[in-house]
Amino acid sequence: MAENQKKEYKAPSAKPNKRKKKVLPKAETAATAAAKPKPRRHYYKKKKKVAPELNTKIRIASLGGLHEIGKNMTMIEYEDDIIIIDCGIAFPDEDMLGIDLVTPDITYLEKNADKIRAILLTHGHEDHIGSLPYVLRTINPDIYGTKLTVGIVERKLEEHRLPEKPKLHAVEAGDTVKVGALTAEFVRVNHSIADACAIAIRTPLGTIFHTGDFKLDMTPIDGKMMDITRIGEIGNEGVLLLMCESTNAERPGFTPSEKKVGKSLADIFLKNEDKRIVIATFSSNVHRVQQIISLSAEHGRKVAVLGRSMVNIIEAASALGYMTVPDGILIDIKEVNRYPENKVTLVTTGSQGEPMSALYRLAFGAHDRITLGQRDLVVISATAIPGNEKSVGKIINALIANNVSVMHDPETDVHVSGHACREELKLMHALTRPKYFMPVHGELRHLDAHRHLALEMGTPDENIFVSDIGKVLEIDRHGARFNGSVPAGKVLIDGIGVGDVGSIVLRDRKHLSQDGLIVVVAAVDLTDGYVVSGPDIISRGFVYVRESEELMDEMRKISLDAIEKCITSRRMDWAEIKNTVRDALGKHIYQKTHRKPMILPVIMNI
Amino acid sequence: MAENQKKEYKAPSAKPNKRKKKVLPKAETAATAAAKPKPRRHYYKKKKKVAPELNTKIRIASLGGLHEIGKNMTMIEYEDDIIIIDCGIAFPDEDMLGIDLVTPDITYLEKNADKIRAILLTHGHEDHIGSLPYVLRTINPDIYGTKLTVGIVERKLEEHRLPEKPKLHAVEAGDTVKVGALTAEFVRVNHSIADACAIAIRTPLGTIFHTGDFKLDMTPIDGKMMDITRIGEIGNEGVLLLMCESTNAERPGFTPSEKKVGKSLADIFLKNEDKRIVIATFSSNVHRVQQIISLSAEHGRKVAVLGRSMVNIIEAASALGYMTVPDGILIDIKEVNRYPENKVTLVTTGSQGEPMSALYRLAFGAHDRITLGQRDLVVISATAIPGNEKSVGKIINALIANNVSVMHDPETDVHVSGHACREELKLMHALTRPKYFMPVHGELRHLDAHRHLALEMGTPDENIFVSDIGKVLEIDRHGARFNGSVPAGKVLIDGIGVGDVGSIVLRDRKHLSQDGLIVVVAAVDLTDGYVVSGPDIISRGFVYVRESEELMDEMRKISLDAIEKCITSRRMDWAEIKNTVRDALGKHIYQKTHRKPMILPVIMNI
Repeated sequence: MAENQKKEYKAPSAKPNKRKKKVLPKAETAATAAAKPKPRRHYYKKKKKVAPELNTKIRIASLGGLHEIGKNMTMIEYEDDIIIIDCGIAFPDEDMLGIDLVTPDITYLEKNADKIRAILLTHGHEDHIGSLPYVLRTINPDIYGTKLTVGIVERKLEEHRLPEKPKLHAVEAGDTVKVGALTAEFVRVNHSIADACAIAIRTPLGTIFHTGDFKLDMTPIDGKMMDITRIGEIGNEGVLLLMCESTNAERPGFTPSEKKVGKSLADIFLKNEDKRIVIATFSSNVHRVQQIISLSAEHGRKVAVLGRSMVNIIEAASALGYMTVPDGILIDIKEVNRYPENKVTLVTTGSQGEPMSALYRLAFGAHDRITLGQRDLVVISATAIPGNEKSVGKIINALIANNVSVMHDPETDVHVSGHACREELKLMHALTRPKYFMPVHGELRHLDAHRHLALEMGTPDENIFVSDIGKVLEIDRHGARFNGSVPAGKVLIDGIGVGDVGSIVLRDRKHLSQDGLIVVVAAVDLTDGYVVSGPDIISRGFVYVRESEELMDEMRKISLDAIEKCITSRRMDWAEIKNTVRDALGKHIYQKTHRKPMILPVIMNI
Repeated sequence: MAENQKKEYKAPSAKPNKRKKKVLPKAETAATAAAKPKPRRHYYKKKKKVAPELNTKIRIASLGGLHEIGKNMTMIEYEDDIIIIDCGIAFPDEDMLGIDLVTPDITYLEKNADKIRAILLTHGHEDHIGSLPYVLRTINPDIYGTKLTVGIVERKLEEHRLPEKPKLHAVEAGDTVKVGALTAEFVRVNHSIADACAIAIRTPLGTIFHTGDFKLDMTPIDGKMMDITRIGEIGNEGVLLLMCESTNAERPGFTPSEKKVGKSLADIFLKNEDKRIVIATFSSNVHRVQQIISLSAEHGRKVAVLGRSMVNIIEAASALGYMTVPDGILIDIKEVNRYPENKVTLVTTGSQGEPMSALYRLAFGAHDRITLGQRDLVVISATAIPGNEKSVGKIINALIANNVSVMHDPETDVHVSGHACREELKLMHALTRPKYFMPVHGELRHLDAHRHLALEMGTPDENIFVSDIGKVLEIDRHGARFNGSVPAGKVLIDGIGVGDVGSIVLRDRKHLSQDGLIVVVAAVDLTDGYVVSGPDIISRGFVYVRESEELMDEMRKISLDAIEKCITSRRMDWAEIKNTVRDALGKHIYQKTHRKPMILPVIMNI
């Protein structure tokens, strides 16, 4: 013990330390303090002199994943070293019209590119890796993740042209990576994708434990349970800060094991031997797909895979040994019709009702090779993410209209969550016993529910930090506090444009979407003061023009009056004429229709 | 029995029959056939001659409420009599941009206005009465409903200018109304609004039983349980056709009693004596509001009501005796701040997250009189209707951000459904034992689930009719079948325009919302063949113009090239020039941005 304490006073050597699991200085927690004969604060008092590294501080800021679902990205800065955990995308809100994806604002990282030591990936879901193709346009640090995660990233990046070759490094759960003055240990967790990890970051001030996304599965498909022993050991060493995901922080109890879905599916296979079985699920749920393939093998069915992302992931997972696919069981979609319907299983994307996904096309009879009907059973092995309920509902209705049998969550047990419910979160808190706690990954309601859970677990309120993107949590030997911020926000991706759509563009799209557009075109001779041509009215998205001739005539007349009024009163300013037309027309239209279309006066000087 | 049978042969007298519950001819059902000594088909065989009214037929068509949620409206036509059950609105789908409401297409009713004998209302919810202000613009039949329903309709219609005075008639549960050759008996059911009824329509061919919306509540707040005895009697008389709501046909079990919510609320009042309690619920849930008022009285709290629709309904319900409001307990919103916070309960609209509802304004600090904070508890006593989850979530997050405590369904028992779950639906089938069955009120998934339930209950598949709006079910003494259709569809209300927004307008709004708009303006001298002015580029909702100067320049150049190409090649046709500009520009823009804005070329001939 004494030796250990002495070690804490060694100045960090300039040479990187290559030993795995080196005991780094630990922060004091209630738990560790209790276990020690000499509480550290006594020790400080005695010596007074403080080791140089203890005068340092850690700065932690999330660039995404707080007050929102998705685009998870956390930055940890210690002196001259920055490490990044995850680099995800979010899907656009319903008011982000026309936007494809949302990525984090990485201005701070771009400005401090020379300090970045690594991007550490917890797992291969889009909300944790999806922003890499955009982020790697301007920075190119080493990227570490487990084999499957790196495999998925590799395939993803191949589709994008990047300025530099990405530096991908595969690690295994249990490995520790040296990143600047810090180290990062990957610790196995369970999740709805294989090979997911939490990450323990050792800093000279103590350990930061970031859970990534996790659940506890006592009967995981690959037999690899979350390494709660190791998490407990790290907890015993002392955890300075726990950053724990909050997705299911409002849900009581435990999330069921993935095996439960297997049992439901087994039942479905048994009871539907006369049908073709079509199962839609998340493409990345390797274990779910594994269970479907195993069941198909048992029942003498061939399996065909539909949907590009599903094909990609299965290829990656099989190539890397994450799936056991019996020889000859996978068939090409072209071969499906050669087999009797009840000897085939289709695994497909589209469980969220995404338009033009494979399931969508199947449901609406728009698939070029496969037509579903009375001899098909579609199982939607997923839960609709909030906002997608209606799209999924449309698919269910379309399938039923084609006499397809449909089974879906939550009436049937064909899906389980990949995220820890409240009891599992409590387990994480109990094992890590952190001094400080920051809930991550979730809207405020989830973060706040998680805060209450931490309070129940005994963490004092002043040690809990519910943060926001960009907000900097600073920790030094005196304590932890919010201190300043770094730039953070949503960078909108529309087509191949990154960040060129902002609030003004979105406001205009919203306006156009509600009541459409009216363009008033006129050519005016300003010198002689008369209207040369027009005004003509062009409308789009406003009213059905052929049935609104009277209104169109009125609009022409009002525009002409407005322009002539400006000319006769010598108010020849362009802006003035346009505003007069816009106001007069807007008023009339609102009175007649209670609508407020966008009005664009185009007045040309001839 | 013999006498009864004889009565069936009496020709319907021209004079309206005023006797209540007259035994009208009944259709044969499996159940009634079994109970009778002489099955009717023998009887027919013996006599051969058929009474005149038995050569008639009934035509049933829903104008709304099938393959959709809302705008419930069913038409029953017998010879020269048409009666209408309900007249509701639907809310627009997410692809109906800018639309406020959706009403049924009533072309058929307008064409047959002289035949319409009555509109019968089952209850006062918007999806059953909301289209009345629009429908009554062109037809004006007698309208029957229970006292509360008619009271709500009265207030609603006052806000609209109608060509004729509406003919509203209040009835009581148990009453029978003569409507042409038919009669309609109102039968009490439970629902999430007081005074809801099912309706039994007696026709010369048999009884049609339409459930309206219902649930079975053994402990209703007003003590008035669904009249299952009467429903059973009607079933014993024989039901030709059951039209039963299907909203919860996918949900197993029974819907809990409204009293359950009362217990949860009582608990909340007890545990939050230090807080102001704000409860958001559906404005029409009179019983819920009654429970809140009673609990407030018990706890010495005053009650203030927020939101126009809530105020309206409470006024109507109290005036008509549907609520017991202790003297002096209701206070005006202006008086709220005169009382200690923990002596006040606020009842508010906005439980669906509606923008600008009272709860929305409270959550976002935009209410002019009340500010919520740490001493407030907001209870969202409602479930988010599919599609509203995100809006409700935003409100929850905003409240938590202001340190307001929030309780919401489904984690707490602060809401119950107003619709029958599967076991209650089975009860309805068991009591009515219909010959024919048509599931109503729901998307296809709900109708289909209800069809399966009816099969389980013993109705043969050929006697179950899953219909669609406009589809006509014809029933005569030989049987029932689909035969033809009447016009049906969605009439979109945008502002005060009814039906002037159709698919083209919506398609344009959608297009504009995705990638915005580019207007290309140029003046051309076609006789001399040169460009007089422009082209100028105006864009809205496309890119942030100030940061896209290069692209704007390219667009100008490409437009000019396209116009000049047309001029030099003598292709002086307007459409030709416009298409050339649109194609050239569209191609360039897509290549540069992967976006497809709407392009409007405006070329003026000078």
